[in-house]
Amino acid sequence: MARYSPSVQNLITKLGKLPGIGGKSAQRLAFYILSMPSEDVEALTGAINEARRLTKRCGCCQNFTDSDPCPICADPRRDKSMVCVVESPRDITVFERMHEYNGLYHVLHGVYNPVDNMNLKDITLTELFERLTEHPEIKEVIVATNQTAEGNATALYISRLLSPSGIKVTRLASGLPMGSDIEFADDLTLASAFKGRKTVGS
Amino acid sequence: MARYSPSVQNLITKLGKLPGIGGKSAQRLAFYILSMPSEDVEALTGAINEARRLTKRCGCCQNFTDSDPCPICADPRRDKSMVCVVESPRDITVFERMHEYNGLYHVLHGVYNPVDNMNLKDITLTELFERLTEHPEIKEVIVATNQTAEGNATALYISRLLSPSGIKVTRLASGLPMGSDIEFADDLTLASAFKGRKTVGS
Repeated sequence: MARYSPSVQNLITKLGKLPGIGGKSAQRLAFYILSMPSEDVEALTGAINEARRLTKRCGCCQNFTDSDPCPICADPRRDKSMVCVVESPRDITVFERMHEYNGLYHVLHGVYNPVDNMNLKDITLTELFERLTEHPEIKEVIVATNQTAEGNATALYISRLLSPSGIKVTRLASGLPMGSDIEFADDLTLASAFKGRKTVGS
Repeated sequence: MARYSPSVQNLITKLGKLPGIGGKSAQRLAFYILSMPSEDVEALTGAINEARRLTKRCGCCQNFTDSDPCPICADPRRDKSMVCVVESPRDITVFERMHEYNGLYHVLHGVYNPVDNMNLKDITLTELFERLTEHPEIKEVIVATNQTAEGNATALYISRLLSPSGIKVTRLASGLPMGSDIEFADDLTLASAFKGRKTVGS
């Protein structure tokens, strides 16, 4: 009976297609948007359009940027011999927050899914290999994809393709999170921590 | 260091102002929007603008609608003697899904917060009282605000204001949810269920 009016229903449908927005969230967002002051709605749609218009991919690292090359690639203080390969632009923020890494990045915009070979074209692996050919100063590629089956497959794929080049390919260590209790560790994490055990004091 | 570019940062900020969208969700949404095909982005912003343009409040029940009066108020088969007062348009969907109620609705678009008397003007109480004056066929007002301090205060407020009018003001029963275990009931719910206990078989 009380379906929403067509325009509201359409808004709910469109919002529900966004990642992490389920049916209930989409409804809540739609009614919130309908109740917002006009200038706030214009600011929101304006921000979407402006971000879409101004943002491009950095020709070097493929991160989203207003300027090409992006501020990180253009920064002369960064160590040009290391490239950290991440799945998403958000991962760069996490690395930068750590204040331990001063090299460059490469954003894959996804991850290699071995079940579906097709998506090799969707992620920026070609751009990565071209970049490594053009920049012989790159000595190490740190594959910082997620610790998932796809992330591991991507790391393996990159390492195999680069093995003839002599470029060192590394992967982030996996193991128990700092401050965690062994009691609550899952089997895979514990097995990984066990295999990667180190001599104390080394 | 690696702050996002200004337009991306602005988009993240604007998305983060929406209800239920935290910092991380806003980042994820922003990068998703940047990766969407252009036609999908246009469909999203178009849906926002169209819903805003077409949707108004029903002059009778204050629900969002494309047509005034809304389909429920205009439906001759609905029982015009009952008005169910809800906080949000979403609550109407829940009632309609129940298929037990055939009366009309009134959307408050909020709830009376006794701590802040000011917001009495923000919710549609004036419209409710005008409607009750204009429509003497309304015999019962069911206050279906949430079971919160504010929802209860609103119910009490409405019932006090309507007491001289002779209109019956009811409130949804509170108690243990169907299928629930007493073991897991919170104290307030259990106390409410205890106070509202009924003779078996009645």
